[in-house]
Amino acid sequence: MKKVAIGQAGGPTSVINATLVGLVKELMHDVQLSFICNGYDGLVHENMRKGNNPFLNWIFQQENKPGACLGSGRYPMSHEEVVHAVEFLKNEKVNTLIFIGGNGTMEALHRIDLEAMKQGYELQVIGIPKTVDNDINYTDHAPGFGSAANYVAHATRNLSYDLQSMKNFEQVRIIETMGRNAGWLAAASGYFKKSEEEGPHIIALPERRMRKESLMSAIESAVSRYGYAVMVVSEGVVWEEGNQIEKDIIHDRIVLGGISNEIENSITEQLHVKVRSEILGMNQRSFSPLVSPVDKEEAYLAGITGGYWVKQDLSSVMVSIRRLQEERYEIQMKPVSLKDVAHSGERLLPDHFIDNPKRYYDWLRPFMEDSGVNQPILASCNKLKQTNLNNH
Amino acid sequence: MKKVAIGQAGGPTSVINATLVGLVKELMHDVQLSFICNGYDGLVHENMRKGNNPFLNWIFQQENKPGACLGSGRYPMSHEEVVHAVEFLKNEKVNTLIFIGGNGTMEALHRIDLEAMKQGYELQVIGIPKTVDNDINYTDHAPGFGSAANYVAHATRNLSYDLQSMKNFEQVRIIETMGRNAGWLAAASGYFKKSEEEGPHIIALPERRMRKESLMSAIESAVSRYGYAVMVVSEGVVWEEGNQIEKDIIHDRIVLGGISNEIENSITEQLHVKVRSEILGMNQRSFSPLVSPVDKEEAYLAGITGGYWVKQDLSSVMVSIRRLQEERYEIQMKPVSLKDVAHSGERLLPDHFIDNPKRYYDWLRPFMEDSGVNQPILASCNKLKQTNLNNH
Repeated sequence: MKKVAIGQAGGPTSVINATLVGLVKELMHDVQLSFICNGYDGLVHENMRKGNNPFLNWIFQQENKPGACLGSGRYPMSHEEVVHAVEFLKNEKVNTLIFIGGNGTMEALHRIDLEAMKQGYELQVIGIPKTVDNDINYTDHAPGFGSAANYVAHATRNLSYDLQSMKNFEQVRIIETMGRNAGWLAAASGYFKKSEEEGPHIIALPERRMRKESLMSAIESAVSRYGYAVMVVSEGVVWEEGNQIEKDIIHDRIVLGGISNEIENSITEQLHVKVRSEILGMNQRSFSPLVSPVDKEEAYLAGITGGYWVKQDLSSVMVSIRRLQEERYEIQMKPVSLKDVAHSGERLLPDHFIDNPKRYYDWLRPFMEDSGVNQPILASCNKLKQTNLNNH
Repeated sequence: MKKVAIGQAGGPTSVINATLVGLVKELMHDVQLSFICNGYDGLVHENMRKGNNPFLNWIFQQENKPGACLGSGRYPMSHEEVVHAVEFLKNEKVNTLIFIGGNGTMEALHRIDLEAMKQGYELQVIGIPKTVDNDINYTDHAPGFGSAANYVAHATRNLSYDLQSMKNFEQVRIIETMGRNAGWLAAASGYFKKSEEEGPHIIALPERRMRKESLMSAIESAVSRYGYAVMVVSEGVVWEEGNQIEKDIIHDRIVLGGISNEIENSITEQLHVKVRSEILGMNQRSFSPLVSPVDKEEAYLAGITGGYWVKQDLSSVMVSIRRLQEERYEIQMKPVSLKDVAHSGERLLPDHFIDNPKRYYDWLRPFMEDSGVNQPILASCNKLKQTNLNNH
């Protein structure tokens, strides 16, 4: 019976546990399961636990919870640590290593794969993608993104209505989304926009450098036309002149954030309007009430697929989602080379989507669930009215 | 036929338009309707529009949208402006003035009421409450609060799961909620907490001054016990030693905000942990997908009630919600004196709720809708599995 070790790594999403549950359900009767805690840190420090039944049942209860229930993390491994990880897996007689994660996770998994080959240890290696940024190559999209996009689009629509009604008091709102290098999330913010007057009026993406002068005149123009301006900006956006705004460094990873605040200050200095910035923050990757049903199904299916491939003896691959046709949404899970993914860098929002947002919104549609604003009119109020009005 | 003028004022909520729609539906066949745009600014500057049918139909379409669809604002009226407002209403032959708003709105409405009496102009005046802070006196709660509380509780639970899974990378998260003087919203953040280990571990309310030393040791203690700490802090919280953190001043109103950032900095300086602050921001008052159904019904009913009272010739009153009994949630709308409300200041979270959160959560229950984390397990994945797995 194969011994399979499973880990989760990188920033979590609201559906990463659905992937884990699918994977476990597909494998639990056919292999011996172990779980690595806290991502690659746990692998390097031999923090692995047995998949006994109580623990598997506990995992099943986490299916709808955001966050990575095994514990995740961002841990850049040194070469020595990669060597040690493989030795550890060898000692533990682990035949299969599966990590659910993003670009960094796939790169690390590929390094482990190479090192195992070098050591002559036959290790099956499978990656399952997750991301909110949608910056993984060789897949149409990855689980986690759809739910994050759905959250961003809803938040932007609502924040825009809110500001519109207060435009006599404040005129500009800057909304900062995730997206270190890729603008998929920020660009999704306009999905529910129904007219020119509704926000967002300006979307700044990391794929295009931002000119301060053009930005100021775009803000001014929206304010003079509609009385207010909503701008969405990806955390990774850079001024044409400058660098990304770095907020902090944790374990060598630069934490971005603060571009919205910088834009707020520039506008305050240059234009005679009141402006406030809002950072959508970790809600983007964790707000479970707005999980996209399609995203969650795909997350679960990606886990099942990875598990199925364990039994089919596929290795050195990542689970990838292929979109079959444009008219009716249909997908297939396909194996792609882990090496290709690891070497391909970050997947940016392509020009044909940047230049033609409608085309992008069509592509986004399967993940977006309009809720809130278009709920049906109240049905039960007449009853309430009868019972309450004559009592004063 | 009475001529009735209606306005919305103060910070909007996600259900303030439901109140407007209820009010209009109750009145449209019996009185002549006019609408004041942009709150008291519109009243002072004679920005009033006729309630013709196309406009009423447009209002009905706004029922589920956040933001105040008539336009709102924060406009502190001078004495001269109050005098002018009454003269304007007199010139326009307005018999009834209704404003939907919070404490500031009720105070302004009361001043207009007094001035009309002084001028000998018979003006019927009715206030309908709205708030996300729940700081209006003489009512059990006010429309808008329940939905905001529901959002805050969901966001906190999800942000806590997210951080818990990343505790190897970051250990502390500070979540800032609205609540200038009253801690109702911040205290609601713990509603979904199921165990000691889940966040929030610390909730700071404006009703109690915060001691830096106790805070640091509470954070340290949570981190050492659970590996992470989630703290929720109301924007209006003050250090025992200091003042509120003022961010900006717009039209003489001090905009609070920044206490979470200050706490973040203190923790970074004093404890050896990684910490990030998150401001929940305007989503709290506008996130329509998490509107509480009970809150929305009550908002609508408050509008209907106000309209009914116009026809009953009640004046100088605010619509108030009385909770009838504890076991089964039932309410009644009652008139309370506008003068009493205007003179009573802000309604703080009472000690018996602060000292006994369980009692507060029982009180909150009618507004809270658990969604997301406890959604049913996926049903359709088996189908997907059949169609997709054999295609690689």
